Amino acid sequence: MANQTPGGYNGKILRVNLSDNTISTEATDEVFCRKYLGGAGFVTYFLWKELRQGIDPLAPDNKLIFALGPVTGVPLPGSGRHCVGAKSPLTGGIAKSEVGEFWGAQLKRAGYDAIIVEGKAEKPVYLWIRDGEVSIRDARHLWGRNTKETQQAIRAELGDNLIRVAVIGPAGENLVRYACIMNGLYDAAGRGGLGAVMGSKNLKAISVRGHKAPLISEPERVKELRQWLLANMKLVKEFQEFGTGAVMEGYEISGNLPVRNFRDGLFHGVKMIDAQAVKDTIRVKMEACFGCPVRCKKVVKFEEPYPVDPAYGGPEYETLASLGSNCGIDNLKAIAKGNELCDAYSLDTISTGGVIAFAMECFENGLLSSQDTNGIELRFGNDEAMLKIIELIAKREGIGDLLAEGTARAAKAIGKEASKFAMQVKGLEIPMHEPRLKLGLGLGFMVNPHGADHCCNMHDTMFVTEGQLKEFKPLGIFEPVPIDDIGPRKVALFKAVQLKQIVFDSLVLCRFLPYTYEQVADVTAAVTGWDMGVMEQLGVAERILTIARLFNIREGFSAADDKLPRRFFQPKTDGFLADKPLDTTKLEKAKSYYYTLMGWDADTGIPTPEKLEELDIT
Amino acid sequence: MANQTPGGYNGKILRVNLSDNTISTEATDEVFCRKYLGGAGFVTYFLWKELRQGIDPLAPDNKLIFALGPVTGVPLPGSGRHCVGAKSPLTGGIAKSEVGEFWGAQLKRAGYDAIIVEGKAEKPVYLWIRDGEVSIRDARHLWGRNTKETQQAIRAELGDNLIRVAVIGPAGENLVRYACIMNGLYDAAGRGGLGAVMGSKNLKAISVRGHKAPLISEPERVKELRQWLLANMKLVKEFQEFGTGAVMEGYEISGNLPVRNFRDGLFHGVKMIDAQAVKDTIRVKMEACFGCPVRCKKVVKFEEPYPVDPAYGGPEYETLASLGSNCGIDNLKAIAKGNELCDAYSLDTISTGGVIAFAMECFENGLLSSQDTNGIELRFGNDEAMLKIIELIAKREGIGDLLAEGTARAAKAIGKEASKFAMQVKGLEIPMHEPRLKLGLGLGFMVNPHGADHCCNMHDTMFVTEGQLKEFKPLGIFEPVPIDDIGPRKVALFKAVQLKQIVFDSLVLCRFLPYTYEQVADVTAAVTGWDMGVMEQLGVAERILTIARLFNIREGFSAADDKLPRRFFQPKTDGFLADKPLDTTKLEKAKSYYYTLMGWDADTGIPTPEKLEELDIT
Repeated sequence: MANQTPGGYNGKILRVNLSDNTISTEATDEVFCRKYLGGAGFVTYFLWKELRQGIDPLAPDNKLIFALGPVTGVPLPGSGRHCVGAKSPLTGGIAKSEVGEFWGAQLKRAGYDAIIVEGKAEKPVYLWIRDGEVSIRDARHLWGRNTKETQQAIRAELGDNLIRVAVIGPAGENLVRYACIMNGLYDAAGRGGLGAVMGSKNLKAISVRGHKAPLISEPERVKELRQWLLANMKLVKEFQEFGTGAVMEGYEISGNLPVRNFRDGLFHGVKMIDAQAVKDTIRVKMEACFGCPVRCKKVVKFEEPYPVDPAYGGPEYETLASLGSNCGIDNLKAIAKGNELCDAYSLDTISTGGVIAFAMECFENGLLSSQDTNGIELRFGNDEAMLKIIELIAKREGIGDLLAEGTARAAKAIGKEASKFAMQVKGLEIPMHEPRLKLGLGLGFMVNPHGADHCCNMHDTMFVTEGQLKEFKPLGIFEPVPIDDIGPRKVALFKAVQLKQIVFDSLVLCRFLPYTYEQVADVTAAVTGWDMGVMEQLGVAERILTIARLFNIREGFSAADDKLPRRFFQPKTDGFLADKPLDTTKLEKAKSYYYTLMGWDADTGIPTPEKLEELDIT
Repeated sequence: MANQTPGGYNGKILRVNLSDNTISTEATDEVFCRKYLGGAGFVTYFLWKELRQGIDPLAPDNKLIFALGPVTGVPLPGSGRHCVGAKSPLTGGIAKSEVGEFWGAQLKRAGYDAIIVEGKAEKPVYLWIRDGEVSIRDARHLWGRNTKETQQAIRAELGDNLIRVAVIGPAGENLVRYACIMNGLYDAAGRGGLGAVMGSKNLKAISVRGHKAPLISEPERVKELRQWLLANMKLVKEFQEFGTGAVMEGYEISGNLPVRNFRDGLFHGVKMIDAQAVKDTIRVKMEACFGCPVRCKKVVKFEEPYPVDPAYGGPEYETLASLGSNCGIDNLKAIAKGNELCDAYSLDTISTGGVIAFAMECFENGLLSSQDTNGIELRFGNDEAMLKIIELIAKREGIGDLLAEGTARAAKAIGKEASKFAMQVKGLEIPMHEPRLKLGLGLGFMVNPHGADHCCNMHDTMFVTEGQLKEFKPLGIFEPVPIDDIGPRKVALFKAVQLKQIVFDSLVLCRFLPYTYEQVADVTAAVTGWDMGVMEQLGVAERILTIARLFNIREGFSAADDKLPRRFFQPKTDGFLADKPLDTTKLEKAKSYYYTLMGWDADTGIPTPEKLEELDIT
């Protein structure tokens, strides 16, 4: 293949070393782009290639990588996303997270496909990237300020209100292990502690502005796909009206809703905190990412009992459940306030809610006393406690310093029975979906290299009726598999869906857009000019996932780390799942068959030499 | 999925029991059609489901199955094919063979998707199928007559010259283990002895006439694909001009051409017997299958030194090499005569040439004497001997009775060192391609359930340059793999190509048409109305191939049967491969990795229970 730049790419990667202030660029060729696509593919490849084994994720040796995909910033609904990754300070394995807003589209227009940040600045700095010009600027005056203040200050001092900013707040600066990176004020590269890595580098923000529209191989075809989506907005009607979180009552009934640290099933306040309630009570408008007509992002505003700033958007489903039902809280305004605080401090709402729920259960079981908690009555349902704890975590004050370490480390420090209440996989707190209901999702929590991940995963409830299956037929799936099945057919289905999501995360394309898989291949072809079908895309995803596995193995992970918390092998206390614990043997068999399907050793989960050679991983 | 008939299918299977003269029809539903497609898929499924273990392939217990695919008979280039199968009298395993001409299109118009022939008629019969009416007719007067006489007689007695006839000649009647079934006079369901199974049932012919054009889901889309092909005929220009066999000189130079029972490399007469020579000396025209503008089928005619009847077409590459170079024969007219005899008697030209070459080498090595051979000097290069032996085989006279048993059985009967010269896998004679050159093809010869098969196989020379790879990109193949590589990348490539060919054989679509794989998926979608992408098609193929494997395992086959003849592990005597024997260890490793990729046990090649459950094989 010739060394040329395909459509959708700039063919250029920006490397910034903050230790010695060097800024350089590197060219990428077509073979590399086609082998790794971009986004999660680029992030995974560079972390695996460039990081030394055993480094401290919060040391200058770690690298923080921002990668666009060929689709990022193309005028197409769902193209507003990119991927960020690093060695995770929370899991010690590979971390990556996709995020929307307009930042990625700006970076594409500024002339880069990725940024690799190395080293550590002597004092706080921020990056300023404008149309291929890059500078490292003093950020001492921004340190300690929240995300909104920082974004405003940067825009003001650079004199351009259209600058897009990826930024950390105090939680990132304070190395909270699940601090996130905010794009603007309500889009987070949330999971795995990427904001702490950014903080460890004394990097406060990356501000971007660009003007060069990406070259597209077949603009007319992209236009047609855009028009198809506009003509089929009915497919996302509910999503457009509510964003995530419209079906929480159904989740409670089916048992999918986490209640009180995944302990319980029933949550009578569910209708008070769902997206309908948000719409009816505190929502003022909906917002969108770059190029997207769906506008799925809630914006909320109120003044009493405390003001919530609409600049920080509003809570998504994950937040409604993690700060809500999973903490036993049915006060929507408190949840919205908690959401605002997390966005302002740059905290992952899923891990934050998970840590708080864990602490609440520890408190209720006498493993934490009110002396430990700075006098806070840290009980399920105490919304004021929840808000206070968020502040303490972000500032690492009092109990917050312990909880800033994440559930797994906190459980270890507390000792005794605390690990029973630690709802995490590989150190990453469980998101708001229930593996006792969705068994394939449980397998995904187990084997995902990033830990418990609900995005790069299947949701078994989407494969139950024939109507639902239509979209998956191009993957070879045309017969329903029951939700509670975890046999080989479910495993094969999980693998296909997981690989497809990696394609989305590498292009990068939003999973909420109703493109069929064949349309996704069409999007890729139209943007890049490659004749890239579904099958080739799945091959690319297999390569990326196998490299992520290799990364973790290098860091000492083994098959023993691919496991769910013990609680899932017990029933819920009430509700639909009160008699439906998971079965260890079945899950372990499924895991082994998943390894087999991936070409990894069935027992150890280590990729076989033959598979590595086949995938050209060297 | 609803129980309805998708486009391209009649939804009806004809079952004829010749023992008790019952004729019945069975409905197929959409789920079944989508799971097995048709053609090779249907054949494999029914043989596996309906045959008892251990039956004699020539006993009434065997079933002979003719299956169309959804594409068979659709007005589209390459759609003139169907598949025939049975338990093979040659290998004892599963046999299936695809064949062109117009017979399949007629059966589609007569209202059926398949015919399952069971039992054995008391006296010779033929079937007459006309627009859904089926009769079993006396064929005593046809028994012993060659294919042309039979076809003419049937058309005359039924009073319709447009009737299409699948027919056996004396070789089928005489149960020659590699007798084929002829569609018309020059298209053979060639391999595995299907003509002997037909003969064992006292079934002389199946004559078909139908008038109901198949229903197509999206006729306009089919028309577009047809027009695309017509506009791109340049892609098959050489093929159109010569049919197969144009590049035999190149084959000789590269070592691909089998010479004297695969022993030698150089064959100085190669230019005298290639398709160019056919065109320049004896060819009178080109003919076509149903719906095909390519017209790749040679027709030859001459009177001296013996007449050759143009009604029997002319020799394809496989015949030019098997009766030519592989027997050391450079007399083109003798090869054309041999081709005519095989077509008239219904003999597979590949196995026939293979058996004769084997016998020649035995003769030259003193394992057969001229007493054994009825006085024939059975030496390489003796074209008259070759023609005489064909007659003896068809009639099972003298040495012909032994050779009618096939190479493997004959070698056993001759004993001593004869097995060294038996070029076969699982009993099926090796077709005219050299595994010492094409290592992936060698793996295909080993593992194919039907024995050494060059159609459902890869030709490594097609994956060497980037230009060649374009077509394979939708399969995830976008980097060349060297011809002589047999590592994991080659194995994965082989698997993809093998599965894709099974899709072709199940649709049924001609492999020589230059549709891309994505166009093949488009063809399927346009005909059936299913949104069936490349990926789903590969899944279907995996199911079919795994069932074929199960069939053979039931019959006692094991991994030990997946092996090449010893000769391939020695170099050729001269030419390009004079220093390039195959490496047993590498081939065995490749075989094991192939099993792994298929989800079969890496050592035994037995499909794992998990894979069976995943593929819904029950």
